[in-house]
Amino acid sequence: MATEKHAIGVDFGTNSVRALIVDVRTGGEVATAVRDYQRGDHGVITDPNNPHVARQHPADYHEGLQASVTAALRQARAIPGFAPEQVIGIGVDTTGSTPIPVDPDGVPLAFHETFRENPNALAWLWKDHSGMAEAEKITALAAEHRPHFLAKSGGTYSSEWFFSKAWHCLNADPTLFAAAHSWVECCDYIPALLVGDTRPDRLLRGVCAAGHKAMYCEEWGGLPDAAFLAMLDPKLGELRPRLYEKAYDSGVRAGGLCAEWAERLGLPRGTPVAVGAFDAHHGAVGSGVADGTLVKIIGTSTCDITVAPKDRAASTIPGVCGIVDGSVLPGLYGIEAGQSGVGDIFNWFVSEVCEGDAGFHGALSRDAAALRPGQSGLLALDWNNGNRTILVDARLSGLLLGQTLRTGRAEIYRALIEATAFGALTIHNRLAEYGVNVERIVACGGIADKNPLLMRIYADVFGRTMEISRSAQTCALGAALFGAVAAGKAAGGYDRAEKAQAAMTGVKETRYRPDPERHAVYRELYALYKRLHDTFGVAGHQECLHDVMKTLLEIKQRA
Amino acid sequence: MATEKHAIGVDFGTNSVRALIVDVRTGGEVATAVRDYQRGDHGVITDPNNPHVARQHPADYHEGLQASVTAALRQARAIPGFAPEQVIGIGVDTTGSTPIPVDPDGVPLAFHETFRENPNALAWLWKDHSGMAEAEKITALAAEHRPHFLAKSGGTYSSEWFFSKAWHCLNADPTLFAAAHSWVECCDYIPALLVGDTRPDRLLRGVCAAGHKAMYCEEWGGLPDAAFLAMLDPKLGELRPRLYEKAYDSGVRAGGLCAEWAERLGLPRGTPVAVGAFDAHHGAVGSGVADGTLVKIIGTSTCDITVAPKDRAASTIPGVCGIVDGSVLPGLYGIEAGQSGVGDIFNWFVSEVCEGDAGFHGALSRDAAALRPGQSGLLALDWNNGNRTILVDARLSGLLLGQTLRTGRAEIYRALIEATAFGALTIHNRLAEYGVNVERIVACGGIADKNPLLMRIYADVFGRTMEISRSAQTCALGAALFGAVAAGKAAGGYDRAEKAQAAMTGVKETRYRPDPERHAVYRELYALYKRLHDTFGVAGHQECLHDVMKTLLEIKQRA
Repeated sequence: MATEKHAIGVDFGTNSVRALIVDVRTGGEVATAVRDYQRGDHGVITDPNNPHVARQHPADYHEGLQASVTAALRQARAIPGFAPEQVIGIGVDTTGSTPIPVDPDGVPLAFHETFRENPNALAWLWKDHSGMAEAEKITALAAEHRPHFLAKSGGTYSSEWFFSKAWHCLNADPTLFAAAHSWVECCDYIPALLVGDTRPDRLLRGVCAAGHKAMYCEEWGGLPDAAFLAMLDPKLGELRPRLYEKAYDSGVRAGGLCAEWAERLGLPRGTPVAVGAFDAHHGAVGSGVADGTLVKIIGTSTCDITVAPKDRAASTIPGVCGIVDGSVLPGLYGIEAGQSGVGDIFNWFVSEVCEGDAGFHGALSRDAAALRPGQSGLLALDWNNGNRTILVDARLSGLLLGQTLRTGRAEIYRALIEATAFGALTIHNRLAEYGVNVERIVACGGIADKNPLLMRIYADVFGRTMEISRSAQTCALGAALFGAVAAGKAAGGYDRAEKAQAAMTGVKETRYRPDPERHAVYRELYALYKRLHDTFGVAGHQECLHDVMKTLLEIKQRA
Repeated sequence: MATEKHAIGVDFGTNSVRALIVDVRTGGEVATAVRDYQRGDHGVITDPNNPHVARQHPADYHEGLQASVTAALRQARAIPGFAPEQVIGIGVDTTGSTPIPVDPDGVPLAFHETFRENPNALAWLWKDHSGMAEAEKITALAAEHRPHFLAKSGGTYSSEWFFSKAWHCLNADPTLFAAAHSWVECCDYIPALLVGDTRPDRLLRGVCAAGHKAMYCEEWGGLPDAAFLAMLDPKLGELRPRLYEKAYDSGVRAGGLCAEWAERLGLPRGTPVAVGAFDAHHGAVGSGVADGTLVKIIGTSTCDITVAPKDRAASTIPGVCGIVDGSVLPGLYGIEAGQSGVGDIFNWFVSEVCEGDAGFHGALSRDAAALRPGQSGLLALDWNNGNRTILVDARLSGLLLGQTLRTGRAEIYRALIEATAFGALTIHNRLAEYGVNVERIVACGGIADKNPLLMRIYADVFGRTMEISRSAQTCALGAALFGAVAAGKAAGGYDRAEKAQAAMTGVKETRYRPDPERHAVYRELYALYKRLHDTFGVAGHQECLHDVMKTLLEIKQRA
């Protein structure tokens, strides 16, 4: 019997870092530890005068990395037969786009004494929106001069993304910008740190961040060309050679664990470290994403991830956030879509409208579960936080329709869940129109695990079975899985991510199967949803909506 | 100095009767008493198996009439110098359409031993909707064969109205229908009772009920012709001669108080009694309605009433409930419009969504008052209870749009108030388009008196000053006023209702004046409201609404 082999996945979230030690043969989760960030508000450094600012201190990453991994190893050591030497590989995922301005050695400027108090020297967290104006200009200039740059990101460049942030820094704080030799995504910085070489011209950049957030594409020679960046600002053009020429998928090894971090973590020097990627993408891998399998990561917002062979799927899909070669699994298009508000919308209704506490979801869910499809008479749009896919429009907002003098809270709550299901179906249908094959849907994330009402509604709305990922920490599991791939088959790992997935990922026994009658009602409701969606969301789309309220009433009376 | 003269107004509501004794010279309210109905649920007799049934027992009218008037007189006698002999006239208003099946003597069948337990023998209260199917058929047949019948009632015959009820009785209970010699509106029955002759072929029918609810119009020879009624059912055609040929305005004297009721009330025999009308119409008169003055009776729903000279206003206005010669003031078109939900919508939000008690309106109003127009980012349609004017469509429902993840209760509450203001403005604009002159707006009713936030919003939305009727019981005051007109000038009353209004009605000193800046924002919001109104409410009206949410956001950001 072979010695057991383990891999470690390290998942850098918004408020904490999680380290997970996984049995490479089975995917069994041996030990896990979470370290909360110590700075700011749960790790997020904000600006009281500017609600768009959200930063993180790289020191939190360093401390969190060491603390979470060593704590997980401590736990694991209590298991008979476990030894740190069994760890054959490390994988990393982080939030993103979370770029960090660094010096020529790759040291974050936040560690420089000069910039100790300067928030622009910190990591620019994914949800920092200070570059809104810059994002609009990038979108406009790209639409005019390089339309293909936008085709892979739904037609709009977001304020959350790499160049919006770097450019905003240039505009708001030219001194800091000038001091930055390069900008490095958090998901690229951590593996570089572990392998002991953070120099921007040496570290391996992940294609996940590059492709989804920085308009990187091999077809057009990597990142946007210097001439285009110079149109934004000559100084951005000058930055271009100090960024990178090539990006890599997570099947590639970033290097071996350096002496310093081997010591700090208590792991063997030289342990293979995989190229990093974003949390949702590794989460999808940890949930078993494959050609034909769509993974829905359902939380406060939703991320929909699947992969498709390059000879079948379109290389651009209108309104879909990103299609990037290798961003999820090597050799396949990684396709990312998402809803900008899901759990957040339910939380809004409970806390702001009902003024209930978190436990109030349970009471509302019980009452909402007793309703039949259509019985509420309501229809909602799931746009309280804008629409990410397929309309890519942050300036859309919520809509609720059909209320009478007797409409109650549970009916509204159910209508909001249904609205998110209709939004999810709209994404699914758009993927299918463009040749993406979806045979299975696997959900993961807090809501998928804890909200059977939502899962049943999604199954009935889609008319398809909903499965749930076996792991409750799929991001860290996906990261560990790439650790096992970085180790390679000879070292007891895997030579291909798909083989690792077959061994290490799975779904729960509980499956949510659709009911044909409920599905039939939802088909009618979805037709109404789609008309509202298009009339309010698509420029130039005209409709007469005179029948909508009456049809809802008819459906209600039948229910 | 002349002896003081008084008039009595008796106002039959849904749950109680109010008697008001008024100083004819000044309109001063000398004494008032309310008698709750004793039967059913606060006077309303319902059917546990049919939510559409709402009936009243005529015995409640008899008892309520005697109890309220004698109690008011008792109060008045405590005032030095008052004597019942000073009462020179009596006026009556009631809810409607509230028809009562009667025998050849005009005795309600409910008093017949045979029908003692039969709810169809009761008065069919205004809000009884059991004749929905019949209403639809009347609308369809009239549209085909007598389109002019519908032109004065907004194009739709309602289930709340006279013929829907009589016909439903015929369909549901032919025996009872056969036993009914005629059907008499409550507002016609009470004056007939007071003058001691309820025989259907002798009592005077009011043009208010006849014109607004029974398609009566002098132009086409009174009520719908027997041939048309026979198309509905031959038995309705046979009823036609047992109804009436002519209807009268409330400036006409129905007769003098009979011996029996003079005795029961303690008033002089022969005291003039005016022809009756509906509560809202008399309420408008008591609020000073005139050519150029629109009265808004704002409560759970809203009634908008004005008058216009026949040579200027159109005799039909699309979507307006009724235009009836003399239904409000003799010699002028009475014009009635309304919103089917106003206070009811605020009550719904407080009780069903916030689950607050009645006192919670105060807290929400305080917070909502602190918001500027547009600041909520929200827009709503006021259709939770359908739309009475100008769409005449009970199958419409509510809509709320613009909510984000931060939208709070007070913002929604304010948006609902604003929605009712926009609905009110839509009615006003429709009247103006058809030549109805509105120089002043006078509000009355519970909400107008108690909700300064609403009144300010209405003033800002309309861009006009909102006045408030001086009396808090304008319906009974209007009835008393017609009592004074029935008495005539020679008896110390008036020869014309307008002269009585000049003396007896007025407005409060508090006026709500519009703010030009707020009005400018509301003009923008109203333009959006109107587009939603038309797209969801008007058959065939197409719009692209792609800009609506974005424009709301812009307005919010400016606010």
